[in-house]
Amino acid sequence: MAAMVATMMMVPQALAYAALAGVPPHVGLYASLLPLVGYAMFGSSAALSVGPAAVMSLMTASALSSIAIPGTADYFTGAVILAALAGVFSFLMGLLRLGALANLLSHPVISGFVSGAATLIIIGQLEPMLGIHIDGGTAFEILLDSLEELPELQPLAMGIGLASVAVLLFARLALTPLLRKAGVPAGSAHLLARLTPMLLVLTSIALSYFLEWDRKVDVVGAIPAGLPGFGLPTFEWQLTYPLLLPALMIALLGFVESLSIAYAIALRRGERIDPNAELRGLGAANLMSAVSGGFAVTGSFSRTAVNEEAGAVSPLSGVISAGLMVLVLLFLTGIFQQLPLAVLAATIIVAASGLIDVRGFIHNWRYDRTDGIAMVGTFFGVLLFGVEAGIGIGIGLSFATLIWRTSRPHIAVVGRLPGTEHFRNVLRHTVETQPGLLFLRIDESLFFSNISAVVDRLMSELKRHPDTRDLVLILSSVSRIDGTALERLQEVNSDLEARGIRLHLAEVKGPVLDRLSRSKFLPALSGRVFLSCYIAELALRHEGNKGAGPETA
Amino acid sequence: MAAMVATMMMVPQALAYAALAGVPPHVGLYASLLPLVGYAMFGSSAALSVGPAAVMSLMTASALSSIAIPGTADYFTGAVILAALAGVFSFLMGLLRLGALANLLSHPVISGFVSGAATLIIIGQLEPMLGIHIDGGTAFEILLDSLEELPELQPLAMGIGLASVAVLLFARLALTPLLRKAGVPAGSAHLLARLTPMLLVLTSIALSYFLEWDRKVDVVGAIPAGLPGFGLPTFEWQLTYPLLLPALMIALLGFVESLSIAYAIALRRGERIDPNAELRGLGAANLMSAVSGGFAVTGSFSRTAVNEEAGAVSPLSGVISAGLMVLVLLFLTGIFQQLPLAVLAATIIVAASGLIDVRGFIHNWRYDRTDGIAMVGTFFGVLLFGVEAGIGIGIGLSFATLIWRTSRPHIAVVGRLPGTEHFRNVLRHTVETQPGLLFLRIDESLFFSNISAVVDRLMSELKRHPDTRDLVLILSSVSRIDGTALERLQEVNSDLEARGIRLHLAEVKGPVLDRLSRSKFLPALSGRVFLSCYIAELALRHEGNKGAGPETA
Repeated sequence: MAAMVATMMMVPQALAYAALAGVPPHVGLYASLLPLVGYAMFGSSAALSVGPAAVMSLMTASALSSIAIPGTADYFTGAVILAALAGVFSFLMGLLRLGALANLLSHPVISGFVSGAATLIIIGQLEPMLGIHIDGGTAFEILLDSLEELPELQPLAMGIGLASVAVLLFARLALTPLLRKAGVPAGSAHLLARLTPMLLVLTSIALSYFLEWDRKVDVVGAIPAGLPGFGLPTFEWQLTYPLLLPALMIALLGFVESLSIAYAIALRRGERIDPNAELRGLGAANLMSAVSGGFAVTGSFSRTAVNEEAGAVSPLSGVISAGLMVLVLLFLTGIFQQLPLAVLAATIIVAASGLIDVRGFIHNWRYDRTDGIAMVGTFFGVLLFGVEAGIGIGIGLSFATLIWRTSRPHIAVVGRLPGTEHFRNVLRHTVETQPGLLFLRIDESLFFSNISAVVDRLMSELKRHPDTRDLVLILSSVSRIDGTALERLQEVNSDLEARGIRLHLAEVKGPVLDRLSRSKFLPALSGRVFLSCYIAELALRHEGNKGAGPETA
Repeated sequence: MAAMVATMMMVPQALAYAALAGVPPHVGLYASLLPLVGYAMFGSSAALSVGPAAVMSLMTASALSSIAIPGTADYFTGAVILAALAGVFSFLMGLLRLGALANLLSHPVISGFVSGAATLIIIGQLEPMLGIHIDGGTAFEILLDSLEELPELQPLAMGIGLASVAVLLFARLALTPLLRKAGVPAGSAHLLARLTPMLLVLTSIALSYFLEWDRKVDVVGAIPAGLPGFGLPTFEWQLTYPLLLPALMIALLGFVESLSIAYAIALRRGERIDPNAELRGLGAANLMSAVSGGFAVTGSFSRTAVNEEAGAVSPLSGVISAGLMVLVLLFLTGIFQQLPLAVLAATIIVAASGLIDVRGFIHNWRYDRTDGIAMVGTFFGVLLFGVEAGIGIGIGLSFATLIWRTSRPHIAVVGRLPGTEHFRNVLRHTVETQPGLLFLRIDESLFFSNISAVVDRLMSELKRHPDTRDLVLILSSVSRIDGTALERLQEVNSDLEARGIRLHLAEVKGPVLDRLSRSKFLPALSGRVFLSCYIAELALRHEGNKGAGPETA
């Protein structure tokens, strides 16, 4: 049952995403067949449905646009080579246990990337939706071209397209609650909403047939019946070389996208996901897609959700789906011939609009401004420079935010909570401080990138506390001190010693202390290393009273 | 006096570095004149001596090699444009207060870069040293070419070169101690050693003159006397555009190199260095170099050291040096005509060999393997791919090490030191733990790049402690939790709740708690937030005893 529903959803999506990738419709059907089997052999999620997906199709079109013209033999060959390369890369990464590569991209950046890609997709669908012809280019060129071409638009195509969008949006946003009010059980209401795209496709085929739309608007056209031939194209270097990098990016993005779907489902079902198994599964899926003449695939969110709602309990569901797809390919391709392209465009637009993560953006912006900026940056990076540059920008922004955060360490002057052994920020708690004794807590590991900021802050705190004789650095949050930072600390130690201020350390972690004792820093340290702030205060207050005499009186 | 000594050192260096940069010798003298004045106007270090320097000259030659042939008018124009652009970039960065850019490069990476550049320089000097002619190329091509050309070498050039190297090495390594043993005061002994290059130059000029070496080996040749003309060349776009990126790199590297010299000197003298003033000073110096027909300059370590030893107390010393250089240009250029190029090559080789930081490498390798790897990687990056790619590789490696470190967080199971309120690692201390109660201390901020590793570790610790009913995460080292990490923590919280394990937080820092209270995480948390581990233990042990009953009995 789950398999049947997934297949019913898959057919319109396969046709639509093939159009998006710039390959003939039957290639989309081929890509929906064997990849399911490939994933089932190696993947770790029981409910994940692998096949053509919006972002992958856009990336395929983008990678191929630079080496061939859509519709040529080179273009189709390129699509197959791209899937094969992406499959090999994925599978190898899985074997090498590089699943941690998913950590290259932060969630806000993934979300910004997908939102940007979805926006690109929607803009790209203006052409079939309006029945106009555009030369292509960047998002803004397409928008401008569309405005110019507006007088040329085919009213029928636009009518069909807008009506389809309306039906699909209604099905997604309002159908389930309406059906439930009407007394339909939740499960069936959900399924009906999910099957609307298929019903829309069948209805418009019927209308197209009776009203002879094929004379007035662009339709899908003849789809060759029968199963795909098996085999790989010759890997001509000239075609393969420029696809290596795009294939790697498709492998990475497909993995990240699929993994987040798999995690979300696994959490609800209490399953465990193995990222390396996922890599192997997606690798096998893409290789299978390639040998059967398909294009790059990955996990699909909407079909996976349906699979799960419909009660898929094992990867077997994927295999049954594949079997049903065989029936479609053998007997049912003929009926899609009359389908207007505007209906497929509407399907793509509605699917893509669901990928634009406005709520995520608001959430990120509120929780952490840096995350919000990374998300917006990636979004516009994709829109302005395309999907491939967009991923590069995304990875760059992920790490730029990380570096930005670690480079601006939080440093607090702390004092003791009266009657306890705990030390807290003087700005947040009412605490006791001792004259001549300054406690500074450094809330970050010390690296080349932040040590200058730390030293500057330290010096300015000493200026604000000119009577300081003992400075205690609390290293409870410092997990590492790199070589550059250690050199600067040594300089600070000699500088302070010359000014008559002793430098102490407190709450140094084991691994840090191990490493410090291998360096020249500890022997040169003018002060001592204390187990805790409390012990440091006891010891230094005592010494201070003894040593300083009249000043403290 | 300081100015006189610095000028005496500067002349051979100016000639040598001009040869290294591929420009005529008088350009080196021009570049030693006005930059001193430019730096004195804006810079913040009293002792820093600005002028031609080894790494800058190599970078100049490298940048120009792709756009012009050494000896052509385009090449000289390019050198001036490069200095002008580097000056503009530096000065602007100073005005924009971008001094923190120096933090882009860690010390090991700077050290690896300078060592690699110095090695490149030495390999490049084989040509004048041996009197052979090489087509150039990468470090290894030059080495291979040199071997092939070995039969062609000029014995006299090699003899002069090797003898010069011997004299210079002797002066650097052995002369000062010998002179001090002979009763010469420390200061004078130092200065004599520093002036050896100038004495060597003068001696070899005399020998060359009397023995008519100019007939047998390459010599410097006629140097036009008189002061440089002032003005800038036309900035032809064709020449300027390819120099933009190299100029930016020269500005950055010149800044980083000069800043580390300035810091080292300032520490000894108790001065304060302002990185932004340094940027403006170096920017002015390079602009001055450009308007007087010179090439890119930066702070020189050897001359700065001499300046300081000889007692320079204000930037005035630089201005006096410039005045002395005017006298050299007006009256003394004639005497350098007979100087064999092999002597200059020897000067460059000995200076460059001092830049190869073997001790730094051993130190970094011992203190922190990651730093050592970054240093070696940058070193070979420069050797294999050239100086510009080398800097890119260096910045990449700097951040790769940072990311590598933060992505592998240290996590400790902790327990209470008996009789205290302190909690420490169970593997390092004898501590008390409570049944059903697991304390985990996370020693790193939580980011997208490490949250998967943290969650994996958390789950495996729970497997090792299957009786856990309360898991306390100690966030004393956690300064930030990014959006991606927060999502995963939310998932962990619901997962654990389903398994009957409560998740608590302890020692959460103020800024982290502020941010968490703006999210949905805190309301959903199955456990509580405790001020300290001790309080958490008291509360949870109590609840455990009450709730669990027979199990704990």
